[in-house]
Amino acid sequence: MRMSDSAAPGAGAPVGLAVIGAGYWGPNLVRNALATPAVRLEWLCDLDLARAHAVLGPYSTVRATASVDEVLADERVHAVAVATPAATHLDVVLAALESGKHVLVEKPLASTLADGTKLVATAEQHGLVLMLDHTYCYTPAVQRLRSLVRGGELGTLQYVDSVRINLGLVQRDIDVLWDLAPHDLSILDSILPDGVTPVAVAAHGSDPIGAGHACVAYLSVQLSTGAMAHVHVNWLSPTKIRTMILGGSARTVVWDDLNPAQRLAVYDRGVDRTGPGLVAPEVRERAQVSYRIGDMVAPTLPEREALRAVMSEFAASIAERRAPLTDGRAGLRVLALLEAASASLANGGAFVPVEHGDPLGGRP
Amino acid sequence: MRMSDSAAPGAGAPVGLAVIGAGYWGPNLVRNALATPAVRLEWLCDLDLARAHAVLGPYSTVRATASVDEVLADERVHAVAVATPAATHLDVVLAALESGKHVLVEKPLASTLADGTKLVATAEQHGLVLMLDHTYCYTPAVQRLRSLVRGGELGTLQYVDSVRINLGLVQRDIDVLWDLAPHDLSILDSILPDGVTPVAVAAHGSDPIGAGHACVAYLSVQLSTGAMAHVHVNWLSPTKIRTMILGGSARTVVWDDLNPAQRLAVYDRGVDRTGPGLVAPEVRERAQVSYRIGDMVAPTLPEREALRAVMSEFAASIAERRAPLTDGRAGLRVLALLEAASASLANGGAFVPVEHGDPLGGRP
Amino acid sequence: MRMSDSAAPGAGAPVGLAVIGAGYWGPNLVRNALATPAVRLEWLCDLDLARAHAVLGPYSTVRATASVDEVLADERVHAVAVATPAATHLDVVLAALESGKHVLVEKPLASTLADGTKLVATAEQHGLVLMLDHTYCYTPAVQRLRSLVRGGELGTLQYVDSVRINLGLVQRDIDVLWDLAPHDLSILDSILPDGVTPVAVAAHGSDPIGAGHACVAYLSVQLSTGAMAHVHVNWLSPTKIRTMILGGSARTVVWDDLNPAQRLAVYDRGVDRTGPGLVAPEVRERAQVSYRIGDMVAPTLPEREALRAVMSEFAASIAERRAPLTDGRAGLRVLALLEAASASLANGGAFVPVEHGDPLGGRP
Amino acid sequence: MRMSDSAAPGAGAPVGLAVIGAGYWGPNLVRNALATPAVRLEWLCDLDLARAHAVLGPYSTVRATASVDEVLADERVHAVAVATPAATHLDVVLAALESGKHVLVEKPLASTLADGTKLVATAEQHGLVLMLDHTYCYTPAVQRLRSLVRGGELGTLQYVDSVRINLGLVQRDIDVLWDLAPHDLSILDSILPDGVTPVAVAAHGSDPIGAGHACVAYLSVQLSTGAMAHVHVNWLSPTKIRTMILGGSARTVVWDDLNPAQRLAVYDRGVDRTGPGLVAPEVRERAQVSYRIGDMVAPTLPEREALRAVMSEFAASIAERRAPLTDGRAGLRVLALLEAASASLANGGAFVPVEHGDPLGGRP
Repeated sequence: MRMSDSAAPGAGAPVGLAVIGAGYWGPNLVRNALATPAVRLEWLCDLDLARAHAVLGPYSTVRATASVDEVLADERVHAVAVATPAATHLDVVLAALESGKHVLVEKPLASTLADGTKLVATAEQHGLVLMLDHTYCYTPAVQRLRSLVRGGELGTLQYVDSVRINLGLVQRDIDVLWDLAPHDLSILDSILPDGVTPVAVAAHGSDPIGAGHACVAYLSVQLSTGAMAHVHVNWLSPTKIRTMILGGSARTVVWDDLNPAQRLAVYDRGVDRTGPGLVAPEVRERAQVSYRIGDMVAPTLPEREALRAVMSEFAASIAERRAPLTDGRAGLRVLALLEAASASLANGGAFVPVEHGDPLGGRP
Repeated sequence: MRMSDSAAPGAGAPVGLAVIGAGYWGPNLVRNALATPAVRLEWLCDLDLARAHAVLGPYSTVRATASVDEVLADERVHAVAVATPAATHLDVVLAALESGKHVLVEKPLASTLADGTKLVATAEQHGLVLMLDHTYCYTPAVQRLRSLVRGGELGTLQYVDSVRINLGLVQRDIDVLWDLAPHDLSILDSILPDGVTPVAVAAHGSDPIGAGHACVAYLSVQLSTGAMAHVHVNWLSPTKIRTMILGGSARTVVWDDLNPAQRLAVYDRGVDRTGPGLVAPEVRERAQVSYRIGDMVAPTLPEREALRAVMSEFAASIAERRAPLTDGRAGLRVLALLEAASASLANGGAFVPVEHGDPLGGRP
Repeated sequence: MRMSDSAAPGAGAPVGLAVIGAGYWGPNLVRNALATPAVRLEWLCDLDLARAHAVLGPYSTVRATASVDEVLADERVHAVAVATPAATHLDVVLAALESGKHVLVEKPLASTLADGTKLVATAEQHGLVLMLDHTYCYTPAVQRLRSLVRGGELGTLQYVDSVRINLGLVQRDIDVLWDLAPHDLSILDSILPDGVTPVAVAAHGSDPIGAGHACVAYLSVQLSTGAMAHVHVNWLSPTKIRTMILGGSARTVVWDDLNPAQRLAVYDRGVDRTGPGLVAPEVRERAQVSYRIGDMVAPTLPEREALRAVMSEFAASIAERRAPLTDGRAGLRVLALLEAASASLANGGAFVPVEHGDPLGGRP
Repeated sequence: MRMSDSAAPGAGAPVGLAVIGAGYWGPNLVRNALATPAVRLEWLCDLDLARAHAVLGPYSTVRATASVDEVLADERVHAVAVATPAATHLDVVLAALESGKHVLVEKPLASTLADGTKLVATAEQHGLVLMLDHTYCYTPAVQRLRSLVRGGELGTLQYVDSVRINLGLVQRDIDVLWDLAPHDLSILDSILPDGVTPVAVAAHGSDPIGAGHACVAYLSVQLSTGAMAHVHVNWLSPTKIRTMILGGSARTVVWDDLNPAQRLAVYDRGVDRTGPGLVAPEVRERAQVSYRIGDMVAPTLPEREALRAVMSEFAASIAERRAPLTDGRAGLRVLALLEAASASLANGGAFVPVEHGDPLGGRP
């Protein structure tokens, strides 16, 4: 990555940051920016200035403004974190990039794959960091999942099943797939081994409350290996469930994000196919398989806020002039899956090929 | 139902019963038959006579045989419970019915909808009870679910989500859908309100261990109301999960069959659509909905073995000359869904219409 | 309560506050003070000035100091929150009170009942608020428990069982009873109905790691009604458990503070004594009791930080010139129980009378 | 052990058994005897003959009788399993032993330590097996606990905490300690390393429903090493809890008997005392300890009914002419603890020495 000089803080100096958007997620960005030494928070920007002031509170030395232009004109600002609605990402992120600012943007990157592609291309032309706030990818749990899968401990990935349901905020502009599935898809993107890619997507959904789009949806992702990943997202469930099962040929891991005492459970259990000669006569009605019933290990994970790590990675990728872990191309790959899912949803639920997982190139 | 005289026990006398099949499920039928006063167990029949003797044990006065003919020729036998592999149901059940015996048969009713239809027609011609051992429908939990849904307490049914996964026996002759989904589909069949029917089915599956058919599968069932039911079945999961969520417009119930201390949880929580005038300005980015956040009630349920109730219902339906709760037509409706699911699985996962939910007529 | 004029903020103006102590708990007091409009945080004071600065962070307008005298001399400071080690409470709180400042103090109030009594007497002489930060008493869960018990819904309180165990910080100066049991005892103090008082305490403990005092301890509190409360505190447990069961003659409630989805469960279950004539012959070997097996209700509770409510109550009690919910006398009652527990621990574990539950008078 | 010839079955032949008592537990003994090849069940004996017939059911070849004399006179009976009320054990067991029958007896062995001693002495004089049905000691979980503790994997045992509470049957003749604590005490007896013995017991209890004796009780057992074991038993709890924590210097294990998916959890976590020089200045307020925060391992355990293993051990100890795992002396050690607990309960809750853990000799 080529790095635009104007956007670089001095060596060792903190990155001057502005947060744009003081709505649902913005305050979390602010709180974590304040606690990150590698960052110097300069501005909180929101069209609703009173809201920005309220988020900062009466004791803060950080400035509030309603003007994005004021923020982008400030030389002390090297980077912006954008937490405005997805429909505004194209304009806001583009303006920031064209002002020479590095950008951290909330998911999804943009409303369409085409828009997202434009943003990634612009960032690359300017040599600027464009990072997706795929927060979950920075949790200790997902980082462990990533090393379990990519490090080989799980063996060949056989299936992925993710459930993300709770009584959620029914969005007016996007359906539940675009609201919640980016979490699961970005996690999947982050943990898949090199060379394993999604090839087709199918989605089923329903809108039982008349919200105008799906409030309950199911997504099946066919991987290039033949394995399948499945995602259940639901705004209507009275109970909150956030689990992901990653089945492997050697081990299977269950991630329950709502169980802080035991988020990950790694099972030495599974089904193996055996040769014909190994089957005892008394299992003649069964397939030629054998079962492993081993122990479960729950690794200890550090408890830390993922968004703190997002902020640090953003600052580090700027300082080190490198792509962040969740760069714009990761955002594009998620967008490609979402667009294919929408196409399947609109067309009877059959699998739709993901032809351009990354219009600008493959996974790193 | 017309009742064949030859198959009727004397008034008040127990039903003479034979269990055919001493494999995986047969011993459970035997144990419950022994404990049901309305039944008199006469025979346990298995091609493997030693196995039948082993199941009965050294203290029993019940007779064992390897001959189905011997059982069907016995006048003291009014009824048979068939727990042989599904592929044999057509022959065994047909022989029993033609010998004038009432039949309780394991799910699925038969290997194909056509075979099943033949069995139901034969039973009806002979005026004999043909009952499906849809065991779950006789659990206190499902009976409560049924009354919650059909009694109106849940309001309009909005969605159903069922998960039935564990390290299961990988079958050689049938895939995971045909093995496990009959449970979910028969439960669904039992609790849907009158007039609500499945209209289309889609299925996605994968076979990551090379078993020759799907070991992980997802089933979406479109209901005539527009609501969707979804089923996840999986033989490869190291953890056992058996939950069903029934979302309603008034209440939502979560059934966790592995939590005996709290199998059902009825939540007074949900999302309601509101009129445009009711939306406060600060939620302008949200859909026009309101949220109910009420208490949860976990009703106390009796602890009893469902198969005991199956046995009692079988005996009672014979004595009272009426159709049992889970009759042959219920079995056909489940078969129709399974056949549509297989068709979808084989054709890219799009929805396949369920044209003949019950080839012999509608739900009662 | 008589209120010293000098310590009163102007009508409607926020209470000028200083936090003394920036160690383990101080940062939480600071964070909540910053978010409480009825309070104006003026100072954070710690002997380790760098630590105070670090807690405030680089963006704050709040002042840091290492001098308690500087804080107490500031007229804009109407009140102080003391989060220094228990052994220093006597000096720090006394100085604050004698400077005319209202005081919020961490538990335990002081190292001895005598010291605590001196502090309460001083506060009362000066007409100042002396409030204990019995944080748990301000959680939505405990407030509901209090209304369940005192409002009569539970019937007569039959037993209390509290477990508070986890891999905790082994303290050098106090044992596990003095470290953890104040939580349970202050909760008990807060929820007991008027007229029900602790009359005797017994404690058993052990020090299996050679820490110099008990690391595992059990406390039994005899109540004036004959019922017993029991507390298990443990620094060595690898798992964290925080449950309290309040058994009542009409209902029993289980509080699991680590289950945010269901903190309280109110059971309509229990054992009632019945008259001799009511006992069926088949239970002749059993006591003459009957069992209620009703439903469980899990009430929805708001999720809010208790310390925010502590801060608000402190400000409100100053503004309204009234005693706070957890006043100095509540702190004395807890101290009296702790001293009796220590006496029992030192003397073979027999019950020790709590002669002076409140040396300055009874419960309000 | 000297073995009376008259009570011995022929070499390789099954042990002829009679079950005496068809009440609460008797049917479980019958069911497991029927399924144990090493045993031949000859009789079920109960004063209420109809009850005995009902337990056997209409298909059984086992004989029923109301006469203990008839059973004891039968030469085909080599052994009896006694499941009558504790108060009758002295007479029934003595008669059986004096008739030359081996005896398996429900806990507690007898109503008093003196009675129990007489039974053990009689069995030893006659060279007969006297085995306690300490069922829990034969569960896969307790057998693993035993090997974890005695095999050294846990390090030095630091504390034991056992909770056994549920809405239980309030007994008329014995309090909750004598009803439930024998389970915990027999488990403790079974897993303690050689040379570690209980030296004193204290008990606190209450009777909030007026049952005439304690319905809620707490037991503290001081071990010879200085460690403490604590037991909470309660008939009034609406929720069922059965957990035991065994804290060790190297590992700690948590047993949750109601979680079949994860009964045991072995934690590599704990607190170690460190030398003075190892403590960093910033922890100067803490004791000189260090913390281990390692993984948790949940070992896979077989699922099998413990009573089946009891029956097998009884038959094997008879055939092999050896003492069973839970012999009469184990029963005496439990009785000694119960008597000391009752003494403490009656005398203010102070520790009472266990002077004669085994009046006939020490632990093996």
